[in-house]
Amino acid sequence: MNVGAEILCIGTELLLGEILNSNAQYLAQQLALLGIPHFYQTVVGDNPDRIHQALAIASSRSNLIITTGGLGPTPDDLTTEAIANFFHTPLEERPEIWERIQQMATLTGRTLTPNNRKQALLPKGAEILPNSVGTAPGMIWEPQPNLLILTFPGVPSELYPMWQQTASPLLQARNYGQGTFHSEVLLYWGIAESALATKVNHLFELQNPTVAPYANYGQARLRITARANTQQEAIALIAPVKAEIRELTSEFCYGTDDDTLASVAGQLLQERSQTLAVAESCTGGWLGEMLTEASGSSSYFLGGVISYSNDVKVDLLDVDRQTLDQHGAVSAIIAEQMAHGVKTKLKSDWGISITGIAGPTGGTESKPVGLVYVGIAYPDGKVEAIELRFSPSRGRNWIRKATVMSSLDLFRKRFVMIK
Amino acid sequence: MNVGAEILCIGTELLLGEILNSNAQYLAQQLALLGIPHFYQTVVGDNPDRIHQALAIASSRSNLIITTGGLGPTPDDLTTEAIANFFHTPLEERPEIWERIQQMATLTGRTLTPNNRKQALLPKGAEILPNSVGTAPGMIWEPQPNLLILTFPGVPSELYPMWQQTASPLLQARNYGQGTFHSEVLLYWGIAESALATKVNHLFELQNPTVAPYANYGQARLRITARANTQQEAIALIAPVKAEIRELTSEFCYGTDDDTLASVAGQLLQERSQTLAVAESCTGGWLGEMLTEASGSSSYFLGGVISYSNDVKVDLLDVDRQTLDQHGAVSAIIAEQMAHGVKTKLKSDWGISITGIAGPTGGTESKPVGLVYVGIAYPDGKVEAIELRFSPSRGRNWIRKATVMSSLDLFRKRFVMIK
Repeated sequence: MNVGAEILCIGTELLLGEILNSNAQYLAQQLALLGIPHFYQTVVGDNPDRIHQALAIASSRSNLIITTGGLGPTPDDLTTEAIANFFHTPLEERPEIWERIQQMATLTGRTLTPNNRKQALLPKGAEILPNSVGTAPGMIWEPQPNLLILTFPGVPSELYPMWQQTASPLLQARNYGQGTFHSEVLLYWGIAESALATKVNHLFELQNPTVAPYANYGQARLRITARANTQQEAIALIAPVKAEIRELTSEFCYGTDDDTLASVAGQLLQERSQTLAVAESCTGGWLGEMLTEASGSSSYFLGGVISYSNDVKVDLLDVDRQTLDQHGAVSAIIAEQMAHGVKTKLKSDWGISITGIAGPTGGTESKPVGLVYVGIAYPDGKVEAIELRFSPSRGRNWIRKATVMSSLDLFRKRFVMIK
Repeated sequence: MNVGAEILCIGTELLLGEILNSNAQYLAQQLALLGIPHFYQTVVGDNPDRIHQALAIASSRSNLIITTGGLGPTPDDLTTEAIANFFHTPLEERPEIWERIQQMATLTGRTLTPNNRKQALLPKGAEILPNSVGTAPGMIWEPQPNLLILTFPGVPSELYPMWQQTASPLLQARNYGQGTFHSEVLLYWGIAESALATKVNHLFELQNPTVAPYANYGQARLRITARANTQQEAIALIAPVKAEIRELTSEFCYGTDDDTLASVAGQLLQERSQTLAVAESCTGGWLGEMLTEASGSSSYFLGGVISYSNDVKVDLLDVDRQTLDQHGAVSAIIAEQMAHGVKTKLKSDWGISITGIAGPTGGTESKPVGLVYVGIAYPDGKVEAIELRFSPSRGRNWIRKATVMSSLDLFRKRFVMIK
């Protein structure tokens, strides 16, 4: 018997790239939570032949097929009919579905068309998968031994409650899950995925939990996933591996799971009841934006100055005009003066400043695109500037975002050091 | 001969639902633009057997396979090796790739690990699909007659330029497309997708060009797509329909194609050689961040003040303390004072201010979550505040982003009015 779920998304709009396939992500997450192995996702258009072909492949390798899309009332909604045809089963009208469609139309003042009646058809032998939000229900059907098919509409606001209310309890009751999966993620900054992988290479051989690296926007992560009978057991399996990884990579690890560099900085400041202000040049406010993403950030973030022009640096941050003319805006000393200036002006405990050349224009031989200085003003009056260099090929917004992330990481490291 | 492209996304993180498959959408859109038929998308994990199985299916029904993911340096990056094995072809190291990996490491001061060397391997006979951004290139390979394979990394910021710079011209040159598709997009703010659709309902019946509405982050768009033998012919087909739509929707249309509300504001300021400064409270710098997304923004954007705390509003923007105590920070009069203050302090022609309650906490009955004031200070000294109300259910970051977008749209409309 094949064991595993397969997601089959049906909709020409997906093939045209008109919408993001967020249903596949949702269903994948839900299957993982239930501990149901899931090895394939397929997308096909609203075409009976290709739906048949996809069903032939899926039914040969999986024992659970979950479809999305194609349950609507228009002529290109073909899913129910195609599934029935593929398994040589006639469609029959379900009076309870047709009644509900009529009730809902009355409720919302809509006029029904003959098309709508199509939504009341299901293959003979299939059960209704109720839709509490929209008109079209799905089906729960075992057309052959060891094969369960669940169909859902493509609209996420209908699919989610159908999953939660009916499909998830059903799959649990029928023991489709093999225990439960639980994942924890360790987050890194300042280390490449490959270098991180080298440090924990021996752990990639583990079977339960598994350890896998991935990267996004210059940010490396390690995911530890355990399979167990209960979530508690899974967490216990993960704990020693997580501790070992932390031991090996502590220098670069800034947090876990839903942490962000900004939320970690915020937690640190909150713990010590200290405040922060920022002075931003090339990032234009992005650091402030990230720091205010979390509600409650006003308890540690006072604000800042976007000193995009040189005059603003002088007028609002008390940067010395002569030093500016001599060293240029992108220099260690100006970063220091900006950090000191914003800390003083806003009366905060800490100041972070950013000045750099994000490009694509504005670079010179001595100061190329990608050169950035981050300034940090400490509570005791000390000021420091750190030079960063990013590859110009990454492009303006990558450099800007990486600069903001780096400034938060530099701040975090210095903050914990001066305990 | 089978004619059609197939997208094969490789990555266990997709099966676990950890990331959205945005690459599939991007590639689908790009294939549509080139007029290349595209009938299937498949997702499999980082597992050689299942990658082989997916290749067997795809190579039997498509003449173009585009893969994403699995080109990184870690042990679970298996794509290149799996493809080579499936077609019984040995891998060989390409010195030019290895050299570039080393150069990039030197540039960014990273240490290379033995893992990285794997990225220099390609199947014998495959060409390099250059990656101008990251270390891992893809491949361009015809392992058998009538089958072209293109591989891409999973990181979108690397995939996009690889597609634009190499894959797209290559597929056009090899005549994979059936004619050409050309799309133009009209961009809207301040109108819902459904309301916009009602205004141009009769155009949705058109066959060539087609008109389709879509929405993203509260932003409605209309896409006009024509198929023709040449791009010029397609543009000519689009022109009259575009003119008609503009006529019907001019009030809400702020731009086309790659425009953003920030880039449109920047163009307007540049045309009149005027400058702008911003004062942001609940958005924390996001408006400044958007305005500085474009290189060259320093010619019209001077900077601003992130006045997250009340003291900063008083100290840096000269907001009146008594008025602040009396009316509260989220009020029309404070928005006006902030806009006037930042314009005066930064000596700009225009000032935009934002003060609001982004939530989820901090709302009251008279000032609920979602209440925002945008202030605008005009060159002639006039000051104005506009009240906006967003649904609290949208969440903090939706409200913040919509506020920034709305402030730019309000500015744009006022700017063009005072010609």
